[in-house]
Amino acid sequence: MVDYNEAFRAAVEAVRAEGRYRVFADIERIRGKFPTALYHGGATPREITVWCSNDYLGMGQHPAVVGAMQEAADRVGAGAGGTRNIAGTTHYHVRLERALADLHGKEAALLFTSGYVSNEATLSTISRILPDCVILSDELNHASMIEGIRAGRSIKRIWRHNDMAHLEEMLAELPIERPKVIAFESVYSMDGDIAPLKEICDLAERYNAFTYLDEVHAVGLYGKRGGGVAERENLSHRIDIIEGTLGKAFGVMGGYITANASIIDAVRSYASGFIFTTALSPVLVAGALASVETLKESNHLREQHQERAAHLKALLAEAGLPVMESVSHIVPIKVGDPVQCKRVTDYLLDEHGIYVQPINYPTVPKGTERLRLTPTPLHGDDLMGRLIEALDDAWNVLKLRRAA
Amino acid sequence: MVDYNEAFRAAVEAVRAEGRYRVFADIERIRGKFPTALYHGGATPREITVWCSNDYLGMGQHPAVVGAMQEAADRVGAGAGGTRNIAGTTHYHVRLERALADLHGKEAALLFTSGYVSNEATLSTISRILPDCVILSDELNHASMIEGIRAGRSIKRIWRHNDMAHLEEMLAELPIERPKVIAFESVYSMDGDIAPLKEICDLAERYNAFTYLDEVHAVGLYGKRGGGVAERENLSHRIDIIEGTLGKAFGVMGGYITANASIIDAVRSYASGFIFTTALSPVLVAGALASVETLKESNHLREQHQERAAHLKALLAEAGLPVMESVSHIVPIKVGDPVQCKRVTDYLLDEHGIYVQPINYPTVPKGTERLRLTPTPLHGDDLMGRLIEALDDAWNVLKLRRAA
Repeated sequence: MVDYNEAFRAAVEAVRAEGRYRVFADIERIRGKFPTALYHGGATPREITVWCSNDYLGMGQHPAVVGAMQEAADRVGAGAGGTRNIAGTTHYHVRLERALADLHGKEAALLFTSGYVSNEATLSTISRILPDCVILSDELNHASMIEGIRAGRSIKRIWRHNDMAHLEEMLAELPIERPKVIAFESVYSMDGDIAPLKEICDLAERYNAFTYLDEVHAVGLYGKRGGGVAERENLSHRIDIIEGTLGKAFGVMGGYITANASIIDAVRSYASGFIFTTALSPVLVAGALASVETLKESNHLREQHQERAAHLKALLAEAGLPVMESVSHIVPIKVGDPVQCKRVTDYLLDEHGIYVQPINYPTVPKGTERLRLTPTPLHGDDLMGRLIEALDDAWNVLKLRRAA
Repeated sequence: MVDYNEAFRAAVEAVRAEGRYRVFADIERIRGKFPTALYHGGATPREITVWCSNDYLGMGQHPAVVGAMQEAADRVGAGAGGTRNIAGTTHYHVRLERALADLHGKEAALLFTSGYVSNEATLSTISRILPDCVILSDELNHASMIEGIRAGRSIKRIWRHNDMAHLEEMLAELPIERPKVIAFESVYSMDGDIAPLKEICDLAERYNAFTYLDEVHAVGLYGKRGGGVAERENLSHRIDIIEGTLGKAFGVMGGYITANASIIDAVRSYASGFIFTTALSPVLVAGALASVETLKESNHLREQHQERAAHLKALLAEAGLPVMESVSHIVPIKVGDPVQCKRVTDYLLDEHGIYVQPINYPTVPKGTERLRLTPTPLHGDDLMGRLIEALDDAWNVLKLRRAA
């Protein structure tokens, strides 16, 4: 006889034994006071400062976004009521897809219920459409890309992270007539480094490869209108598919791809994860549309965001804290051990009301456990000062390793 | 050289050649007037009646649901701002998971961004956790279950739809010590038939199999509190995992599973599609919570719903229209050809302002193309009368086959 419960219990026990059992912090954001939130973990709720949100610009509380959502709920109600094909396409969806295509200078766009699903569904679908396809995947690509590639029917080759010589070696080995997809991200979210987009585009051109770029940690944040790193470097037209999210800088929820019309039409017609799922709620779509349009119009928040990240990195370095190298808005601090990592974040929360989630395996490789700070334009000098003091205290009390 | 665009164009062309190219109807629901909506397909928007929404009870426009969403947007803002583990768990999520566990009489629940993802992520995860597992899958299981099973590491065996003898035969062939998962749905959404739940539970017990039940077309609609067919038949305690959606009868968006605590904890700790994705927007979660609680309290809408479906079936039979057998709220009418199916729905929309989406392959097998009507408590006698007249007209004009 099989003891099913025992199998599940043992699986959880294995996670616990590695010190990476996750307890979700029950928090409640307070609109108008972000990054302040209520923490429900104790006897009574108390106010904390959130330092690890992916609502990178605080758009989740922007009046234009919240107002658009409330208005849409009032006008059309809660849900889409069906798949995109069966009663679930609303005028909001049509308008947002146009706005996203425009954002990236592409002919068309397609919405998904999440960025995860957009990667998974699109990569599995294109690898089924392109016969005998080989997918060349950066070794640090996100789990959703890995799952999408696995679900497809292609052969996968993994190139060393951002290593152009290794990628070229792999491309050169393949026959020119064989379809090849180079799958990569612009901003890698746990290290904060950025892929050499131009070099990848050059290689793709030389070896006749198709390019798939995940910009989820860059859309809204880089480029003159928030079109991502590809826009900033004027390379959007050289990328075949740009994938993005509505759930990070845009502050809402959902994912998308943009590309030329025939690619979008093919994914729309074949991707199981697109076809057989209820469409995004029009309430979310209305909010996302307001967010995209707001961030297209002005660079102000983007400039503040970069300034805040640079300032925080400087403060951390000054305090001798082991801030990891990052060329983006993401500010990781190395701890290097899952138990210590959890301990320091518990200490910060309990003693200083500062919420930073420990980042452990499988999100990052074992031995590189870290804190990952995401300063927004709303993290002012006062909050930064308090954070540095709290970290300094935690590093002293827990005897953690300082920067070399 | 590979012509990538040509490959995508050809893939779309293949869909077109089969007469199943999909054009999404651009519609805009009108809160307070459902099932009336604005159709944006012509030169100017015009009012139509929606007959194919999965917002089965009209909860998408319920004041309690819409109000809860607007209030949540006001209190906490638009998005969750992170994965469940990293800043994305709000107090709304915690409360909704408790309410869903309670709804199904289970210890715990876990939210996903969609019903699709809940099936895909859970089935792939349990098949990786249970060593040498065999998944026995009903042949008409939804695409999301099929993808989840495919993504796992189990062997899959497909039993003929609702065929208990076939299922038992397969179970009997397997060693008793081998983990076995029986995966099935309660209401099959395209035919409207219901699985023999008790017989499946009996077989599972006899052969020591684990049971996974998809109730997405039943939650909110069956059982005294909307706990689905398993609740109606007092079998919830005999099903290991019950999966549901917040995007159909509950009228919002999102998916979930409920089970005992160790199963939920294991899926929570291992499922890539749960871990690495932005949490559901608290706005959606607040709306879903209001909807679940509202439908727990009263059977009124459920009774109206069943009455409306029975009445429509009787009217269709009376008019000699080829209504397919269905024991649920789903009312399919057989056309049997994708081109004719599209033609009749175009005619209904253009001539009668009635919106029914043609259901073609791959959603249903080729040769069984159909209209799929979903009467709600808000489809009154007047709307039903107009629908029957319109169908009668369409069947005459397009010379479609009547009932035998």
